[in-house]
Order: sequence, then structure tokens, then C-alpha cells
Amino acid sequence: MYKLYSMQRSGNSYKVRLALALLGAPYQAIEVDILRGESRTPEFLAKNPSGQVPLLEIAEGRYLAESNAILWYLAVGTSLAPESRMDRAEALQWMFFEQHALEPNIGAAYFWLSLVRGGRELQTHALEDWMERGYAALQVMENHLKTHEFFAAGQLTVADIALYGYTHVADQCDFDLAAFPSIGSWLRRVEQMPGFVSMDWCPDLEVTPSASIAADA
Amino acid sequence: MYKLYSMQRSGNSYKVRLALALLGAPYQAIEVDILRGESRTPEFLAKNPSGQVPLLEIAEGRYLAESNAILWYLAVGTSLAPESRMDRAEALQWMFFEQHALEPNIGAAYFWLSLVRGGRELQTHALEDWMERGYAALQVMENHLKTHEFFAAGQLTVADIALYGYTHVADQCDFDLAAFPSIGSWLRRVEQMPGFVSMDWCPDLEVTPSASIAADA
Repeated sequence: MYKLYSMQRSGNSYKVRLALALLGAPYQAIEVDILRGESRTPEFLAKNPSGQVPLLEIAEGRYLAESNAILWYLAVGTSLAPESRMDRAEALQWMFFEQHALEPNIGAAYFWLSLVRGGRELQTHALEDWMERGYAALQVMENHLKTHEFFAAGQLTVADIALYGYTHVADQCDFDLAAFPSIGSWLRRVEQMPGFVSMDWCPDLEVTPSASIAADA
Repeated sequence: MYKLYSMQRSGNSYKVRLALALLGAPYQAIEVDILRGESRTPEFLAKNPSGQVPLLEIAEGRYLAESNAILWYLAVGTSLAPESRMDRAEALQWMFFEQHALEPNIGAAYFWLSLVRGGRELQTHALEDWMERGYAALQVMENHLKTHEFFAAGQLTVADIALYGYTHVADQCDFDLAAFPSIGSWLRRVEQMPGFVSMDWCPDLEVTPSASIAADA
């Protein structure tokens, strides 16, 4: 069984949890609170020298970092990985776009405005740039989604999961998605996929039917 | 034949030229000077809505953007693409690392200090962050290269090409590589590969053997 080092409210970590859920793959989740420095301990740095989550332990002592590389690994042989050479390249194109145009801007705004107390005041100088570049990235996505249901291969792939991670929390960090109706429709399409789980969903909190009934009682 | 929209002094563009050279693949290069806004014209934006180079025209009207996605596309079926699932994932891991830890810092420093006149003064406030994060990325690479000849699969792959792009110009933008001897050795290993071309090499300047002899005479 996979072991996933993840932070519940990290969009990058959520991408991997979402892929595992859509694939129905069992895993053990280990919460790593980067705000408390838990990804910077000697023990964690021995597993991932970059000191970041998510981190997937694939086999005893064999670790894979980088959310989008993990997505690609998990998707091998499933419908989440496009089949043709060109479709695969286009999925990767959007995943690299996500890591340099979306995540450093919307991801950074989300982190500082939504997760760090007093973050807005600390990052006043950077926020304007994040907003400008984040909106530019959203516009590129909106233009694509005007004529496509998904980002690559005409179906839900790892590219959609990668982009969903931070796009779906953009409205929690000052971005107004009202001007991006095609993005809104795409977010709903992803959310309707069988097996979809929200960012709040935590594998450790999963309740069995009987426990659920007990809780309702 | 491929058509490559590229800027000669862009590290991201160079990655693709280097891969094409190592693979011995013929292509037509079209210089796009982003400093003169040539990637922001309506004509270019119609080809790549992100307004960036490199951009590869794979077939008439079919374009692929994002340097690392292009590398992956070109490498299919060649020794530059690792074969096993884990090796492929590890190559991708390093390529995503390159796009969020190396390129935004060393690439940004290179752009503003080396390509833009007066760039140092314009970016004084950002340079300190770029240096700190760029050195952190170099340290992660150095630690890996202490015990590995290449980044993935024990051989030269697209991951090395991606990381070479900006690492080899780090010393042109204030980074001192003297403290990273394993990176130095790895740079030399890449440069000794058959077919290697430098960033300065321009396909349009290629001389035929007879022309070369004529030039020597």
C-alpha cells in the first residue's frame, strides 16, 4: 500500500489525494504540517531533500516527490494518462504550465492569504504580482476551455487534476472567477467524476456506514 | 521537418535545441525576440496563447509549448526517455523541480542580469530571493550528483537536458558554482555527449564541410 506524506490544506498534496481517490487506490496518509516545520526535520529531509509535500513512498525506502510527477506515476495504465504521443505531450504541457504559471501565483496567494495568519500583511509587495500573473494564467485556461471540455485528450486526465488543485481555491484568495465561466463549468465537470473527493476529505476521517448511522443517531 | 520558435539566449529555448542536436533531428529555427515583444504579437499568440518560447510546430498548425513537455515529446522512443515506470517518474520529478525551483530563480536572475540592460537595478528587490532559492536548488542537485552520474535512470535523459539549460549559465548571473563540484563534473559530462551543442550554436550558422574548408583557407 502506498504511504503518502501530505498536508491536508496543500493544493499540491490534494492533487495526489484526488488522483488516488479517482483511481480507488488505497493508501496510508501521514499529515505533515509544513507551517510547523515538519517538512524540514532531518528525518523528512532524508526522504525528500527538497523538504516538500506531497511525497509518495512507493516501496520501502523508495520515494517520489513533485505532485505532478506523482500524478503521472499513479496514472500509468489508467484512463487518467492519455495514450497517444501528442495527447501525452499536451497533458504534460498543461502540467508544466500549472507549475510555473498557476501554482507560483494562485498557490502562493492561497498559502499566504488563506493558511498563514497575518500573511496578507507580510506579502503585500508580492500580492499584486501574484494577482496579475494568476489572472493571466486563468485567462489562458478560460480560452482553452471555451472550446474543450478538458485540458488534453478530450477526457479527464492528470492535467485536469493538476490544474484543479489550485484553481478550485482561487476564490479563497481574492481571485474572482465570475469572469471565467468556462473554468466554472470545468470545475463542476471534475467534481462530478465518480470517486471525486473534496480537499477537506481526509482518509483518516472516513466513516464506515455503521459509524455514519451512529453519528446521525 | 519540425519548426522551432526559439530565442537564441533563452535557456528554455536552448533545452529544445540541445535535445534536437543530441537526437540529430533536423529542424527549422525561427528566432523570436521576446525582449522586442515578438512573442506577444497577435500572430504569435494565436500559435501559443501563453506568449512564450520555445514553441514547436509538430505538424501544420499543431503546436506544442513548454520546454519540458517538448523535450518529453521529442524523446519518445529514444535513449533520452527512461524506459521503466519509476525511472520515467523520477525524470519527471526532476523536470518539475527544474520548473519551480531552478528556472524561476536562476532563470530569472539570468534574464534580468544577463539579457536586460539595467535589469539589475530594476530587480534589486527580487534578486536576494532568487539567489537564496537558486542556491537552495543547486544544493539539492549537488547532493544528488554526489552519488549519481545523471539525474535519472543512470544515464543522460531529458531530465539532464532540462536542468542543464539554466544551470550552465548560473555563473553568468552572480551564482558561484565553485562550492558545487559534483554539478561541475555533471556539466562536463553533459558537454561531452556526442552531438552536444552550446547555447551560442545557431542552426542557421551551420556550415557545410566545404564551406568550412573555404572559411579556413
